[in-house]
Amino acid sequence: MAETRNGEADRLVVTDRTRLRRMRENGRPYRAELDKVLAAGFLCHLGVVVDGAPMVVPTVYGATGDTLYLHGSVASRSLAADPGATVCVTVTHVDSLVLARSVFEHSVNYRCAMVYGTPRVVTDPEEKLEGLRVLSEQAAPGQWDYARRPNRKELAATTLLALSLDEASVKVSAGPPEDGEGPDAELGLWAGELPLLATWGTPVADPVLPVNVPLPAHIAARVGRTDRLGASG
Amino acid sequence: MAETRNGEADRLVVTDRTRLRRMRENGRPYRAELDKVLAAGFLCHLGVVVDGAPMVVPTVYGATGDTLYLHGSVASRSLAADPGATVCVTVTHVDSLVLARSVFEHSVNYRCAMVYGTPRVVTDPEEKLEGLRVLSEQAAPGQWDYARRPNRKELAATTLLALSLDEASVKVSAGPPEDGEGPDAELGLWAGELPLLATWGTPVADPVLPVNVPLPAHIAARVGRTDRLGASG
Repeated sequence: MAETRNGEADRLVVTDRTRLRRMRENGRPYRAELDKVLAAGFLCHLGVVVDGAPMVVPTVYGATGDTLYLHGSVASRSLAADPGATVCVTVTHVDSLVLARSVFEHSVNYRCAMVYGTPRVVTDPEEKLEGLRVLSEQAAPGQWDYARRPNRKELAATTLLALSLDEASVKVSAGPPEDGEGPDAELGLWAGELPLLATWGTPVADPVLPVNVPLPAHIAARVGRTDRLGASG
Repeated sequence: MAETRNGEADRLVVTDRTRLRRMRENGRPYRAELDKVLAAGFLCHLGVVVDGAPMVVPTVYGATGDTLYLHGSVASRSLAADPGATVCVTVTHVDSLVLARSVFEHSVNYRCAMVYGTPRVVTDPEEKLEGLRVLSEQAAPGQWDYARRPNRKELAATTLLALSLDEASVKVSAGPPEDGEGPDAELGLWAGELPLLATWGTPVADPVLPVNVPLPAHIAARVGRTDRLGASG
């Protein structure tokens, strides 16, 4: 197929929905870029159509291989009405404000992935457990081994959705303002980027936790780190 | 009307779309709560329906009075097809991970606002300028007065949308894990919250900026501050 050139095999297939209409220069149609954007977060905005209108809800996700796992409860209304319905999952990380010489050139530097598809309800118990592990580890790495895992009753009470990563687009906006070499540069105004950093803060113990329970190392290790950001922080 | 009790006038009107199906205890059906969630961010996820499928795109917003202003370009595809189309605008701030004794009780503490409506294209030049000011000041306070404002040509090139805040819902999840008094408390595991903090970092000057241009005070004042967070950081 398209594997004759190095890297072409990594290219995302472009569909009518994932073709970029605006800011095409920001497109990153590569699977590796998609994986990076998805790996950098744990919260997505899930879009579904309910009674003809869009509904956008935040929810946690986990990505592994060719699959994105999602909790099913938030999508249940639209899926119950139409099991073949398409959803759109968007993951956005804001990296900085772009402060230009003119208001018109102001913008936001960000990384954004959009995934389209028809989610599948995971029924196989083994895949369900593995999907929940992926979901859990993406937001809270180490907790799957540390905390009590789901029992049979809890598994049954959880709806897990699997969405293929086959139809996706990635956009990345980075760099300084673009009016540094136009007439506005003569205005003598400061211009540049104001970075937005997301970091994990000091853990707050549950008020009812006995004082002798130590903070486990895998949680302590995250404090002050900026990996695994929220959806757009 | 419903203004007989103190605070009732502040209550958000509940419609079929904004009635909470899940986690009703997290509902905050008050206008003041909506204003607070919107004021704490500048990036939303805009949901539109394109060819029957949902499309969710990140974009900046500005809120003032009863109106949310949005750049129109991202919604242009769906609005061109159907000027009366409903959109859903969702603003989410992630505050912490809730690390419980069981994986099943893990969750995310967040603040989320959802606004439904049919956006109106702003054509009045005065409202357009004011809407752009609100949009600009929400993300980059102080820049409207510091940077060069939009000229006539730039104003004409910008599509601004206005969305009423009349139909909205707010959800806030806060507090420790909920399994502190159940049988899992006996496991002796650490449980609590891991806060996610978003802060403005050190400004990065445009590489082509002359070295003698000082960083203005209104930008310097934001560094290290956690107000005006990104969409969910």
